[in-house]
Amino acid sequence: MSGHILALSGGVGGAKLAAGLCAVLPPERLTIAVNTGDDFEHLGLTICPDLDSVTYALAGLNDTTRGWGVADETWQAMEMIGRLGGPDWFNLGDRDLGLHLTRAMHLRDAKSLSEVTAMLTGNLGIAHKVVPMSDDPVRTQVQTDAGWLDFQHYFVREQCRPEVRGVRFDGAESAALAPGLAQALARPDLAAVVLCPSNPWLSVDPMLALPGMRENIAAPGVPVIAVSPLVGGTALKGPLAKLMAELGQPVSNLAIAQHYEGLLDHLVIDETDAADAADLRDTGLCVTVTQTVMRDAQDRERLAGEVLAFVGGVE
Amino acid sequence: MSGHILALSGGVGGAKLAAGLCAVLPPERLTIAVNTGDDFEHLGLTICPDLDSVTYALAGLNDTTRGWGVADETWQAMEMIGRLGGPDWFNLGDRDLGLHLTRAMHLRDAKSLSEVTAMLTGNLGIAHKVVPMSDDPVRTQVQTDAGWLDFQHYFVREQCRPEVRGVRFDGAESAALAPGLAQALARPDLAAVVLCPSNPWLSVDPMLALPGMRENIAAPGVPVIAVSPLVGGTALKGPLAKLMAELGQPVSNLAIAQHYEGLLDHLVIDETDAADAADLRDTGLCVTVTQTVMRDAQDRERLAGEVLAFVGGVE
Repeated sequence: MSGHILALSGGVGGAKLAAGLCAVLPPERLTIAVNTGDDFEHLGLTICPDLDSVTYALAGLNDTTRGWGVADETWQAMEMIGRLGGPDWFNLGDRDLGLHLTRAMHLRDAKSLSEVTAMLTGNLGIAHKVVPMSDDPVRTQVQTDAGWLDFQHYFVREQCRPEVRGVRFDGAESAALAPGLAQALARPDLAAVVLCPSNPWLSVDPMLALPGMRENIAAPGVPVIAVSPLVGGTALKGPLAKLMAELGQPVSNLAIAQHYEGLLDHLVIDETDAADAADLRDTGLCVTVTQTVMRDAQDRERLAGEVLAFVGGVE
Repeated sequence: MSGHILALSGGVGGAKLAAGLCAVLPPERLTIAVNTGDDFEHLGLTICPDLDSVTYALAGLNDTTRGWGVADETWQAMEMIGRLGGPDWFNLGDRDLGLHLTRAMHLRDAKSLSEVTAMLTGNLGIAHKVVPMSDDPVRTQVQTDAGWLDFQHYFVREQCRPEVRGVRFDGAESAALAPGLAQALARPDLAAVVLCPSNPWLSVDPMLALPGMRENIAAPGVPVIAVSPLVGGTALKGPLAKLMAELGQPVSNLAIAQHYEGLLDHLVIDETDAADAADLRDTGLCVTVTQTVMRDAQDRERLAGEVLAFVGGVE
């Protein structure tokens, strides 16, 4: 296989496949564009949960036991904030805060989120290109019986308890693609777009909502391959299954394929959902059945290799 | 003794006497006004080193081994900031950052430094009134061969190495006394002003430079009593002795008394400097010779009691 790969990633699950792609592709052949719809302003800092999950995973700094955040983390600042009556509902670790403080400093200095992300990932020794989906703020919000909730209020403060009636991406219609994302899409040697195993409604849709994004990805000649975030008919992590049900969708790979209709060429599903393959193929999709659960580096590299096999494999 | 005591304090040394005064006086009889000339903006946070030293000392959270900052501190955020190429020359601990983040949040919310200080000290269980000298920014700067340096750049980044030619308090001429300080000064029952053992040029002078401050303190009827920061002819901590020499002053209690000329009624000096007492008395001052080094709570309470003895003792 030759050519450039554009991977679109949300947080933890997507970050695992992104790490696998980094292990099998040299830096010049991969761009990882990350959802920023979950970003929010908190304690005067711009928190970018998905960018940070990808950054920590690629730097080998992610906590594999807890499943999110930085390894060897402590929580002393947050404990003090709580003691002082400050907002402690969004748990930021001390090491993580070091990153947020540094990013906030550069953003105040009028650097773009793309520039800051390049600096932070570079300083952590990440050679591959990690870019936000946009340098303009896009904020995912979910509609509940109590009105529209900011994503982190729904996801962290309310622990995904409210029933979701709809999802919107505030600011998306006027947000420009980040330069690194636009450049990857415009490459004549773009060989494939990989949708990482992230929540289609909450993590991938914010990216697809950006002006030009869907048209560019759907353009003929560039195959789009998604790894389903469903395993055994449910999500490994996060509110995907609950959300699909609340949005009136069957919790199935077929519903995910239909959600990506017009975009998707190939869906990679977990071996526990092998029974879904026939129905998926009936819709005209290529389907790969494999182990999509990534427990370690070997799993991540193997899955990345299987994803790339669709576009000719890794040389 | 009856009446209200106003204590003016700088950082660590002053904070020890402030803690002693809190131990012997009920909350309604004491106001502690703290130097904010050392404050600075860093990483998007307003850092108030002296206010924080006093706060941590009164809350029993101060680190007694290191001599500054919070006990049980960790430095994970700062380690990450350094790793990311951010500014790590001013070492902020994780617990300390929790306080700075909470203060910054309230300041952005248009609360005054006085209001925020009341909130923070209250949440840490401090019953006594701790107030900044002013809610307006006053910034101490020192003149060196390389020009005027912001205080923390001189004090922390340059480790007090540059020779000091002069000191100024940027913003002092237009800064208003904080409400709590103005109220204490206006009290008809104000019984004494205590200058804590802080650096006269760097920690007490910023307070005396505020409009109305010197006149109010010098007003007849309210005795002013200072505890000398010199012990055995030098400072226990900080650049006082070096600074006095650079400013052309003999490093002596007499020079400190002359610096406070027209303000001071009584000077408390350390027993190791007992030989200074005669010369000081010749200038018309009352002098108390005692142990001014405060190693523990007992030392702090004893010294506070001896200071208050001048105004009639603690009832």
